Amino acid sequence: MGRTLAYPKRVSNTANRYKHRATYDLGPIHSIINNSQVLHVSFNPGPDDPFPAILPMIGQMGSYEFPSAGIDEPLDCYLHGYVSSRIMNLARSSESEGLPICVAATKVDGLVLSLTPNSHSYNYRSAILHGYANLVTDEEEKVWAMKLITNSVVADRWDNTRVPPDRAEMQSTVILKVKVVDGSGKIRDGGVSDERKDSGSEEITSRVWTGVIPVWETFGQPVPSGEGKMDEVPEHVAAFIASKNARNRAEAESAVKVTPPGK
Amino acid sequence: MGRTLAYPKRVSNTANRYKHRATYDLGPIHSIINNSQVLHVSFNPGPDDPFPAILPMIGQMGSYEFPSAGIDEPLDCYLHGYVSSRIMNLARSSESEGLPICVAATKVDGLVLSLTPNSHSYNYRSAILHGYANLVTDEEEKVWAMKLITNSVVADRWDNTRVPPDRAEMQSTVILKVKVVDGSGKIRDGGVSDERKDSGSEEITSRVWTGVIPVWETFGQPVPSGEGKMDEVPEHVAAFIASKNARNRAEAESAVKVTPPGK
Repeated sequence: MGRTLAYPKRVSNTANRYKHRATYDLGPIHSIINNSQVLHVSFNPGPDDPFPAILPMIGQMGSYEFPSAGIDEPLDCYLHGYVSSRIMNLARSSESEGLPICVAATKVDGLVLSLTPNSHSYNYRSAILHGYANLVTDEEEKVWAMKLITNSVVADRWDNTRVPPDRAEMQSTVILKVKVVDGSGKIRDGGVSDERKDSGSEEITSRVWTGVIPVWETFGQPVPSGEGKMDEVPEHVAAFIASKNARNRAEAESAVKVTPPGK
Repeated sequence: MGRTLAYPKRVSNTANRYKHRATYDLGPIHSIINNSQVLHVSFNPGPDDPFPAILPMIGQMGSYEFPSAGIDEPLDCYLHGYVSSRIMNLARSSESEGLPICVAATKVDGLVLSLTPNSHSYNYRSAILHGYANLVTDEEEKVWAMKLITNSVVADRWDNTRVPPDRAEMQSTVILKVKVVDGSGKIRDGGVSDERKDSGSEEITSRVWTGVIPVWETFGQPVPSGEGKMDEVPEHVAAFIASKNARNRAEAESAVKVTPPGK
């Protein structure tokens, strides 16, 4: 029941091509962000530098105000960083709303090999967010976000480490909170799509193989540091690896089977 | 023999943290770019938009002028896109040197799980380039770049498809050539690194498991489209999958075994 929340369409986040692949719904966009090991975060370093900067960061969508909010509800984007990094200094000194940034996440699900290079494609899921970034200053919110982000790397990891962070750790870590202004996602799945001029040619179809190679992230056998006292891989790590591997592979393989819109 | 070429250090590409992980050498930076399935490309849409934009794109380093140039020699970055996309329109209409952009590539090799959330890390390789993007107008260079990029997705794919591109395909495809101004890379490998205050505590080391979970991209069994006449997966596809899988796994697993600098 209930309605599907969507981000407003602005020039900056509206797809011009393959419109049927675009989504503005909060749910899928937030899911793509939350399932990415790395987010690429772009910002402008200052008036003297013509080039935007990109930092690879770890982050996660969540709501501190409404912790029970679902993935398809309004959420903030929390990014993890180091106290003296450039993006943190810019966010700290930014006036008015905060530092304008763009957050991007992309996952490749498969290589789509068609008859011509021109119609080659990827099965993929990508999302971008635009928003204003500010430093989290409330200690409780900061620890909450640190836990959220740590557990996004490995589920339940936070409670299986030495916590809470001490004073020095709290001071050296900075969490950015991004108030999201707009966002969009793009999802391509399905099989090969060729033009009639090629698929109708016996000469071409008899010599060019077409199909999809699924791609997914595999987590391998954990390598213990050998420094601790725990020899056995704990349940939270083993369970994480098993569930991620099963899910990643299933997502890549099922993406191939979807009939793409417009076919 | 020979010297190692490095990008100049400017404010915009100089690492402030973990300096020992940073590199400015052309070789490793170009390799990271060329081994990435997706590049994240950032640009500024215009004076009315406060937010930088990020596009996921496919691209490759190469030299049209000196095709025999090695990976550690000066190269341009070629990016593949669609004729009416915003970045292409901006590059087309850009004055003077071209559209200032940032290109980023990141590969995660492992999750580094330590005693505290604070010292958790990734094994990873990341690279960024800053440069000026212009449209490739020379037809011969454009086809050369299309072949370079297609073969970066699957080795030898170009010659195993219907080529050359026809007039309509040439017109709908745009190749951006990025003249690189500076670049930098960051590589983190090795095992867990904890602080003495934690690694010296029997209470902590007896209950917190530490180690590295290797991560790599796996290419699965190819799924034929069923539309062509070729039933068997051709040699260039099978060889690509086998060599990529072996290499990706070896890279992730060997990254764990490196002794990190400073240890």
